[in-house]
Amino acid sequence: MTNNMRQSHLFTKTRKEAPADEVSKNAELLIKAGFVHKEMAGVYSYLPLGLLVINKIIKIIREEMNAIGGQEVVMASLQERATWEPTDQWSDENVDIWFKTKLKNDTELGLAWSHEGMVTKILKEYVSSYRDLPKAVYHFQTKFRNETRAKSGIMRCREFVMKDMYSFSKDQAEHDIFYKEATEAYKNIFKRVGIGHLTYLTSASGGVFAKFSHEFQTLTSAGEDTIYRDESGVAINKEVYTDEVISSLGLQKDKLVEERAAEVGNIFTLGNRYTKAHNFTYTNEKGEEQEIVMGCYGIGPGRLMGAVVEVLSDDKGIIWPETIAPFTLHLLVLGEDKAVRDEAEKNFKTLVEAGVEVLFDDRSDISPGEKFADADLLGVPYRAVVSARSIKENGIEIKKRTEEKGKIVTVDELIGLLVTKN
Amino acid sequence: MTNNMRQSHLFTKTRKEAPADEVSKNAELLIKAGFVHKEMAGVYSYLPLGLLVINKIIKIIREEMNAIGGQEVVMASLQERATWEPTDQWSDENVDIWFKTKLKNDTELGLAWSHEGMVTKILKEYVSSYRDLPKAVYHFQTKFRNETRAKSGIMRCREFVMKDMYSFSKDQAEHDIFYKEATEAYKNIFKRVGIGHLTYLTSASGGVFAKFSHEFQTLTSAGEDTIYRDESGVAINKEVYTDEVISSLGLQKDKLVEERAAEVGNIFTLGNRYTKAHNFTYTNEKGEEQEIVMGCYGIGPGRLMGAVVEVLSDDKGIIWPETIAPFTLHLLVLGEDKAVRDEAEKNFKTLVEAGVEVLFDDRSDISPGEKFADADLLGVPYRAVVSARSIKENGIEIKKRTEEKGKIVTVDELIGLLVTKN
Repeated sequence: MTNNMRQSHLFTKTRKEAPADEVSKNAELLIKAGFVHKEMAGVYSYLPLGLLVINKIIKIIREEMNAIGGQEVVMASLQERATWEPTDQWSDENVDIWFKTKLKNDTELGLAWSHEGMVTKILKEYVSSYRDLPKAVYHFQTKFRNETRAKSGIMRCREFVMKDMYSFSKDQAEHDIFYKEATEAYKNIFKRVGIGHLTYLTSASGGVFAKFSHEFQTLTSAGEDTIYRDESGVAINKEVYTDEVISSLGLQKDKLVEERAAEVGNIFTLGNRYTKAHNFTYTNEKGEEQEIVMGCYGIGPGRLMGAVVEVLSDDKGIIWPETIAPFTLHLLVLGEDKAVRDEAEKNFKTLVEAGVEVLFDDRSDISPGEKFADADLLGVPYRAVVSARSIKENGIEIKKRTEEKGKIVTVDELIGLLVTKN
Repeated sequence: MTNNMRQSHLFTKTRKEAPADEVSKNAELLIKAGFVHKEMAGVYSYLPLGLLVINKIIKIIREEMNAIGGQEVVMASLQERATWEPTDQWSDENVDIWFKTKLKNDTELGLAWSHEGMVTKILKEYVSSYRDLPKAVYHFQTKFRNETRAKSGIMRCREFVMKDMYSFSKDQAEHDIFYKEATEAYKNIFKRVGIGHLTYLTSASGGVFAKFSHEFQTLTSAGEDTIYRDESGVAINKEVYTDEVISSLGLQKDKLVEERAAEVGNIFTLGNRYTKAHNFTYTNEKGEEQEIVMGCYGIGPGRLMGAVVEVLSDDKGIIWPETIAPFTLHLLVLGEDKAVRDEAEKNFKTLVEAGVEVLFDDRSDISPGEKFADADLLGVPYRAVVSARSIKENGIEIKKRTEEKGKIVTVDELIGLLVTKN
């Protein structure tokens, strides 16, 4: 059974206004359209339509992680001191985004802002020989980050789901191969969710273990970063933008363009920082103890959803790419006339049976103007209208969200158009 | 592509021993089999095989919730004081399982142990008329509960995913209809995950708004509750076991049997406790303001998984019901002989292409005895062995996890057996 829904059944409604304290465009549109609900600054709940989008994004990410051999787990959020002390990351001085809490016996616990320590401890129990490596493990899990400010809507939250992948390799060369595969997987993700053309593989500060880390930066005025982009699809983050870096990357300064951008993913070489601190090594073919090289690869489905809204909306509302839209088709019935409504009901049934994902605006006592405005705000890629006029013209009026004018087609033609699309 | 995996690729391995502090049978077996990893008392991570089981349980629950009109959301874990103060549930004196934390500006936050307050606030923004009711909303989300003791393995955790559904009805009669539908949906869930025959609809204390709440209690010595069960499938929790209750339920005392049982789900009439406290009402056809009747319906996928392990394992390991098994078939290749391995590889490919979910034990340098013991511990419903002997007999040796002796069949026969099953 394909995903379909009657709007009369949906508990959410569109709203004229977002909360007064909401300053970001992404959250404003998503709240007005009923995709998310703001609980407090930086904390959002996902309502039915928003969850459909998030689940499609998660599915795409999962497919790409599985394709490079990732094994999915879910690691706990409650974290012990012992998990982070070996890397000096337990104290609030060293990591300033901890949320801490306590057991009844006063043992202090932290809420995971990331999982490097925990994944290292878990892998250590199963991996000991060169035969066990390389391995890559990922999970989707809520991260808690005690941000001082949270003003970018669903793009910077105090609580948000993140996909983290962690790789464990026998040496730097093996790590480099996986790092490249992960880079390609990430590019696929951004392409598939519809922002590939606006997203740049951006060199940023690499820390102790690598010259650079890499951020995926999507061009948007809502971004928190400044990047210098080349038309080849790569860029440099302002934090490392020097003549030396420009030339080491084979770029030319006069061809780089300064832009505002939002980080939508990042990948990082961690070297032996965590594995060494947790005494996690392996034995090679000769029986010698060797260090393990680690990498991490992060992407937030909610942040991705926010970025899509920032860059692909217009003044009427959201424009979802077909790959992550909550539905493919928004079917509207206009008026209360029984013959028109019967025809719309019949079309809804036919479309669903043909495998089209349909949101059916079957609401009564809502004017055509309101239905059209809601459809534009919700941003389903195709809109089909059944009305007295469309029936007179022996068809159904179809229009893409991005087009101004619709045209009359038969239901079979509509199915042909949409099912081939998917 | 169906779900399949090579055991040589899987990062987990079976273990001889669970951690010394682990006292519950469910966690002991699941840790030894590599399904879960214990982070601390009452806190577990889910490893690849465990996550496959959890996801199948979640899928079953989701289907049953959708079938009764539930709309899925995800509500946040970070909770404000204002969400719980109207019902006097913010203070640690009134609710003794809170984990509390703080924003940088010292604002106190709680970690959600449940979501009645938040769902009421959300629905209040969209529901105002009789036309908007009834509605049922559910989510799968991590709950945090600061339990003093956590000794029942994955069946009583400090952090665990729970499905909560909340219903909102125009009056008691409408609530009662939905409550009955939810009861049937819950029965379906327990039947489908394989413990229906051991699970009793148990009357328990109902609070202010209903004579009884209902727990679904599964018979097991690992349970924390005592119930009195009738062979018709209903039971009474010890806490309300009086002559008056027995007769009000139409039961006969001399036919009731005392048993230990574990609560695997519960449903509860909340009346107007939350809606009234949050000033959430609706307007009826006559324009009059009316109270909204609420219900809640909880079930923990992890607790369900733990209960299945408690009641369906034997002394060799776990016995998964086919509906929630990580794989349908465990394919073992014995020995290092190339012809045997080639045959096993060919069978693996054929089975996967036929749509069978296969875990392929393709590991080298592992003795047949170890492979058999691992297969019994992991508990995949069917085991198929490819060996020099099976090839000589022109087939593959198939055995159910619950059977002692296998038999030789062709791969086509095997596919016929397993694909019809699914």
